[in-house]
Amino acid sequence: MSPRTGTRPGGRSARIQRAVHQATQDLLDEIPRANLTVPLIAERAEVDATTVYRRWGTLAQLLSDVAANRIRETPLPEATGSLRGDLTAWSQQFAEEISSGPGRGYVADVLAGDATGDNAKQCADYAAESIEQILDRFDGQPLPSVDDILEHVIAPLIYRILFAANRPLTGYAEKLVTEFLDGDHTAVA
Amino acid sequence: MSPRTGTRPGGRSARIQRAVHQATQDLLDEIPRANLTVPLIAERAEVDATTVYRRWGTLAQLLSDVAANRIRETPLPEATGSLRGDLTAWSQQFAEEISSGPGRGYVADVLAGDATGDNAKQCADYAAESIEQILDRFDGQPLPSVDDILEHVIAPLIYRILFAANRPLTGYAEKLVTEFLDGDHTAVA
Repeated sequence: MSPRTGTRPGGRSARIQRAVHQATQDLLDEIPRANLTVPLIAERAEVDATTVYRRWGTLAQLLSDVAANRIRETPLPEATGSLRGDLTAWSQQFAEEISSGPGRGYVADVLAGDATGDNAKQCADYAAESIEQILDRFDGQPLPSVDDILEHVIAPLIYRILFAANRPLTGYAEKLVTEFLDGDHTAVA
Repeated sequence: MSPRTGTRPGGRSARIQRAVHQATQDLLDEIPRANLTVPLIAERAEVDATTVYRRWGTLAQLLSDVAANRIRETPLPEATGSLRGDLTAWSQQFAEEISSGPGRGYVADVLAGDATGDNAKQCADYAAESIEQILDRFDGQPLPSVDDILEHVIAPLIYRILFAANRPLTGYAEKLVTEFLDGDHTAVA
């Protein structure tokens, strides 16, 4: 990154972002979501509320930013030696994270304050990067594309978590990976 | 429905629900989302704000209810004579609705104020009912399951609309239907 940028990691702008993000996360743990306001967050972060409004616009946009930062790339599960095993382990871990109590709320927050779609795209990019890292382990073999894995494993998982929260997830990631690798002509290039 | 229920279509409870939903929809068209409050909605609906809080709890829950009611089953596109044609036409229509300016916002609203997952499930049920109506037209043929269609056509469409808003949708519904019907061993029972 250029040293001329105004958002150096150690700069004032970065310090404000860290303080406001941290204050938001702390307050989310302490008080009901419906009671959260920009002035409360600003007070906790020890910045002016006008600074928060100028930078994030609305509470929804700030919550979207905070949630997108929480849904980060977590370490890959240990390698199993096979693409099938690695994809299954990773998609199970992914499903557990997103379907956890806070996980579903973060996804809703990301979408709710995200007029540009940038934060949602950042979350999708985390998933794509993890899949790429797994595929890299099997370089030289015929491999499915990242897009096909997103389409037939990740998309159905997210759909079930968001829209059919009362249907069981146990075994679902494994079923999707198995059907994808065994059943689909187009899965392997 | 039992005649003893407290939410008869013509009852006071139903009148309040209609007035509050209508006031919310009207205000969403008139003022920025971030300025919307329960007192404003109550004033427009000519009910006490306490009535709104007692019934919906928070603004987010009210917005979720309103959005779930907007994402209704729309009429099926005209029959084309083939399952492929009907599924393609319907999933294109579905993608257009959800990816429209307000459509994406409704989905975010549904998820944001939906602690139980009931509103999200209602939206998923609309999609499942439409697919069932299409499959009914081809009764007697070997048919894919509703779940498989949700998994491999609807889930990837929603994923792209929500998480990759900047990727083109043109032709994507048709591609998914074609791959599903032609490429997937498990697609047809």
